[in-house]
Amino acid sequence: MKHIQFKLSICIMILMLSCKDNVKSEMDTSQSESTIEISNDIYKIEPPHWWTGFKNRQLQLLVKHDNIGNYTAQISHQGIALKQVHKADSPNYLFLDLEIAETATPGKFNIVFRINNKPELVQTYELKKRQIPSEEYVGFNSSDAIYLITPDRFANANPENDSFEFLNEQGTDRTDGYARHGGDIQGITENLDYIKNLGFTAIWPTPLLINDMPKGSYHGYAMTDYYKVDPRFGTLDDYKTLADELRQRNMKLVMDQVANHCGLEHWWMKDLPFKDWANYQDHYLENIDRWDSQVTIHSNHRRTTNQDLYASEKDYQGMSDGWFVKDMPDLNQRNPFMANYIIQNSIWWIETLGLGGIRQDTYPYPDKEFMSNWAGAIMTEYPNFNIVGEEWSSNPLLIAYWQDGHENSDGYDSNLRSTMDFAMQEKVVAGLKNEETWGTGLKEIYVALANDFNYTRPEDIMAFPDNHDMSRIFTQLDGDITNTKMALSYLAVLPRVFQMYYGTEILMDDFAKPGDHGLIRTDFPGGWANDSTNAFTGENLAESKKDMQAFVSKLLNYRKSSEAIHTGKTMHFAPEDNTYVLARYNKEETVFHIMNKNEEPYVLKLDRFEELALNGKTLKNLMTGETVVWSDTLDLKNKGSYLFTTKLD
Amino acid sequence: MKHIQFKLSICIMILMLSCKDNVKSEMDTSQSESTIEISNDIYKIEPPHWWTGFKNRQLQLLVKHDNIGNYTAQISHQGIALKQVHKADSPNYLFLDLEIAETATPGKFNIVFRINNKPELVQTYELKKRQIPSEEYVGFNSSDAIYLITPDRFANANPENDSFEFLNEQGTDRTDGYARHGGDIQGITENLDYIKNLGFTAIWPTPLLINDMPKGSYHGYAMTDYYKVDPRFGTLDDYKTLADELRQRNMKLVMDQVANHCGLEHWWMKDLPFKDWANYQDHYLENIDRWDSQVTIHSNHRRTTNQDLYASEKDYQGMSDGWFVKDMPDLNQRNPFMANYIIQNSIWWIETLGLGGIRQDTYPYPDKEFMSNWAGAIMTEYPNFNIVGEEWSSNPLLIAYWQDGHENSDGYDSNLRSTMDFAMQEKVVAGLKNEETWGTGLKEIYVALANDFNYTRPEDIMAFPDNHDMSRIFTQLDGDITNTKMALSYLAVLPRVFQMYYGTEILMDDFAKPGDHGLIRTDFPGGWANDSTNAFTGENLAESKKDMQAFVSKLLNYRKSSEAIHTGKTMHFAPEDNTYVLARYNKEETVFHIMNKNEEPYVLKLDRFEELALNGKTLKNLMTGETVVWSDTLDLKNKGSYLFTTKLD
Repeated sequence: MKHIQFKLSICIMILMLSCKDNVKSEMDTSQSESTIEISNDIYKIEPPHWWTGFKNRQLQLLVKHDNIGNYTAQISHQGIALKQVHKADSPNYLFLDLEIAETATPGKFNIVFRINNKPELVQTYELKKRQIPSEEYVGFNSSDAIYLITPDRFANANPENDSFEFLNEQGTDRTDGYARHGGDIQGITENLDYIKNLGFTAIWPTPLLINDMPKGSYHGYAMTDYYKVDPRFGTLDDYKTLADELRQRNMKLVMDQVANHCGLEHWWMKDLPFKDWANYQDHYLENIDRWDSQVTIHSNHRRTTNQDLYASEKDYQGMSDGWFVKDMPDLNQRNPFMANYIIQNSIWWIETLGLGGIRQDTYPYPDKEFMSNWAGAIMTEYPNFNIVGEEWSSNPLLIAYWQDGHENSDGYDSNLRSTMDFAMQEKVVAGLKNEETWGTGLKEIYVALANDFNYTRPEDIMAFPDNHDMSRIFTQLDGDITNTKMALSYLAVLPRVFQMYYGTEILMDDFAKPGDHGLIRTDFPGGWANDSTNAFTGENLAESKKDMQAFVSKLLNYRKSSEAIHTGKTMHFAPEDNTYVLARYNKEETVFHIMNKNEEPYVLKLDRFEELALNGKTLKNLMTGETVVWSDTLDLKNKGSYLFTTKLD
Repeated sequence: MKHIQFKLSICIMILMLSCKDNVKSEMDTSQSESTIEISNDIYKIEPPHWWTGFKNRQLQLLVKHDNIGNYTAQISHQGIALKQVHKADSPNYLFLDLEIAETATPGKFNIVFRINNKPELVQTYELKKRQIPSEEYVGFNSSDAIYLITPDRFANANPENDSFEFLNEQGTDRTDGYARHGGDIQGITENLDYIKNLGFTAIWPTPLLINDMPKGSYHGYAMTDYYKVDPRFGTLDDYKTLADELRQRNMKLVMDQVANHCGLEHWWMKDLPFKDWANYQDHYLENIDRWDSQVTIHSNHRRTTNQDLYASEKDYQGMSDGWFVKDMPDLNQRNPFMANYIIQNSIWWIETLGLGGIRQDTYPYPDKEFMSNWAGAIMTEYPNFNIVGEEWSSNPLLIAYWQDGHENSDGYDSNLRSTMDFAMQEKVVAGLKNEETWGTGLKEIYVALANDFNYTRPEDIMAFPDNHDMSRIFTQLDGDITNTKMALSYLAVLPRVFQMYYGTEILMDDFAKPGDHGLIRTDFPGGWANDSTNAFTGENLAESKKDMQAFVSKLLNYRKSSEAIHTGKTMHFAPEDNTYVLARYNKEETVFHIMNKNEEPYVLKLDRFEELALNGKTLKNLMTGETVVWSDTLDLKNKGSYLFTTKLD
């Protein structure tokens, strides 16, 4: 331990020297607070501002400044009580516990830091007035179809912000799947009408916060400042504009957040506040000079240790505390200051952008008690909000475990409203690809949906054909357009939140190197000036791709106003003769979805479906617009999905 | 409907004519009950006798006799009240509801049936005294290892009872996997010491009741009388002797029962008491003259409809009411007389044989509300009993659903203490066969066991390497003896009830035609006079088979007295370097089980297992008897399973 501390001290000394422009000496701060001109002298104070009017009236400020740990702190402002001041292990941090009275008025106040024989440091801090009542932050739900976007690859509206000299990764290279390509927030904002016209009601851009990493920064999951937008994506104002433009279209913004890890270049890695700010922190500091070697304690990724009654502590720790990858330090959410930091950061972004949801990355990896507290804190503040956690598992037991309200034998309640249906994704692909036999093919999908009895609220689970980490659905389905349509329409009518990855509507693929992340996240054609093809306008777009755009648009625009899909009941019928029927219905509307694998024309007998009470009713084929009166049979001329509805207008 | 009823009447008339020897006219029954010599004139009364002293004091007798529906019934006996007499749809049945007072004394009494202008019919009925207190019927549990036997194929101790002229299937043919081979109850009884020496503590013979079917009767699952032992297996006395001999060895007898269906040749099929005694009864009666055609309403076997929130009623009915196969009529347990009949039959056998458990066939197929009532009735009467239901599913959700106490969203509680772990069986085979990669191989087994968090009581679930309906484990593992040993020892140390199929200890296989039922159920060598090989004595038995016998014997004889395995805690460790460690432990004893797939000698580092607190302790290798003191490493010289214990005696 001594050896490690010694090294730590040396590191900190070296790093302090490089922080020279942050250390200022201000003489004029010795005047009384009421009369002076305030200078904000502190290197960092986070959250950078806060609000009045939260249920939770506690606020914990992280203050970072040279030697600040040896200062006292004082606040003299009505309604604001400085309850406690915490020193950290590093002398360059203070944590201030504030209590904001219910009667506190929005506005600015000063925090004064004092030490013997040095000038005071004065920091203005602002409490803003909340603009929207808590209840009006409505999270995504089963009425939503979410368009998942990798911003670097969607549209480059502002080539001016593609690269900055002060950042670690330089330039763009559109021929390299792992370099930056220049896409930005403005590129999304400018194409919202395209997304809306496809029928989507929400977007989920992968993280937009700064990733000042030397390489691979485009993906955004290695954040180096939780309060800064990556300048290559734009500014905070750009982000707010995107949020506003979405709101004007009655669309929701889902923010991708990461509580498990930061990027290795995060500013605090150079001067960690506590000895236990990150997991395996000693190990990291010991080996900091040979970073490129494989000395990190990697996560063992044995995620079942979260639930496993028989897991060894060591395996659980290896999973939870190990680093996700070697350039992403694993944050220690058991440190209460870290816990507060992450919770406040999430709330800061919800409030700043008026979010319509959070997608939380690598959900099973952070400390799970913390994750429950984190989600609980958010949901207490915003009762109608929604959060979806990513657990990449095809095991319905785990999907169920993480959803709030599930009767877990260990008593765990995640406070998480939504989980991700990797199980269904996998089964839809398998069921479409596999031959129709007694137990394979469409029956696999049918049997998978039967597992819904296991979920607290299936309709709050997110279904998707693909995402940014897996092969494109068109690739998974071996380039079969008909099967791709079947997958999309089935998933879109399920009792689920629906999510689709950008470009799936134009059959984007990764055939050249299936599963390659760079390739999966291909540039959206038309997003860059002079692109020869423009999928936003249809210019030079292949007919098959236009056809898929039209298919998605019809499907999701119907879905948008279909109460039967949003909140209706579900009935499905055991597959027979290579067909599988699923119905969604309420009193006014029935949606009748058929997956038909028969290559030859097939006549579907309708008596099996009499429980739907459709006899004599007129149904419209959503894709062709043709109507048919329900009687004995239905002619299915081609293989593919058929979507009928009783809503004729 | 009229058409069907007409046909039904004709059938009944024809069948009545063939019942001629059951219709007697008795003059001497007109004397008063107290003085006459009683003749038991009734064709059938079931249960054939009953007991005093049950918690449930209701008893419903099925009475079958020509025209009995038009008779009155009378019982004059202290403590016995005839509460109600029910007519059936057929005139040849009566159902009598008796209430047995707590004060009723065991003994015989008469039931007198009267009709105008005909002699009385008098039936003696006996209430016996229960021999064993309810609490002493202790069902199999995690301390048990159960030997599953197909009696026709185990040992033919009595060649006199191989075939009977009055039965539909004649003769034996040991060259035909689907013919009878002659094995019998006495054959099991005579070899109990062999079974006991292998370390088993219980046996589960597949059904021994009469299957008077024209073919395939050997398997026993098409019962034609629920109160008769198949004479080719022996007599009721033989069955009782088996039970007694087991009891003397402190072993348990598990009876295989079938509530879902009977055999088509069941006596009641010729004159069904009610219009709804069987499911799709009309359909059967309509087509009775062309039985060999495929006119049965088969079950659709879509068992997930039991749980599926979205299943159509029609699919559920198709699964539950359809016939399992065309010569097994599906019983309608929603008919309350049928329900009583099955419950009483089960209790009759528990009490008659002093059972140590029931295995219920095709568990998800009968009406599930009835099955809950059935199991509930038994468990109420015998609080320490156990029942295991067969649901052939590799989906842990379904395995959990059927176990009592599980929080099912539909509120269903099965009252079933034990379910079958087909999921684990499948994963053990897959994990041993599959290559060791990031997610495959031993990790598949490790991850499968992690699902235990989902079960109410994992230790009450039955684990098994194989059974009578699937390929032999040695065949499933491609004839790999080492892998077979790994599968057996892993399954035997799990927190589970352990079950193994007869002959697995001598590497019985079905390589010639994998999965063929006849072949799976091969004759046990030595079970027939003049068998050239005798696995009971070891005569001419190959060394590899003797070696496996010795392995099983060491394994299960250790298991027999291992509290750590029966009731200890479990800890397992994420597989690394092609090894997977599972420990079972309590304060006095630790069992340390290693599955090692390394072909080359491997040195297992022990620091990963420090939570087991074994440092400095002496452990014995169960198979070699060698001891080792726990320190830094353990040498694993060969691929295979290693079973160490801290119990040295």
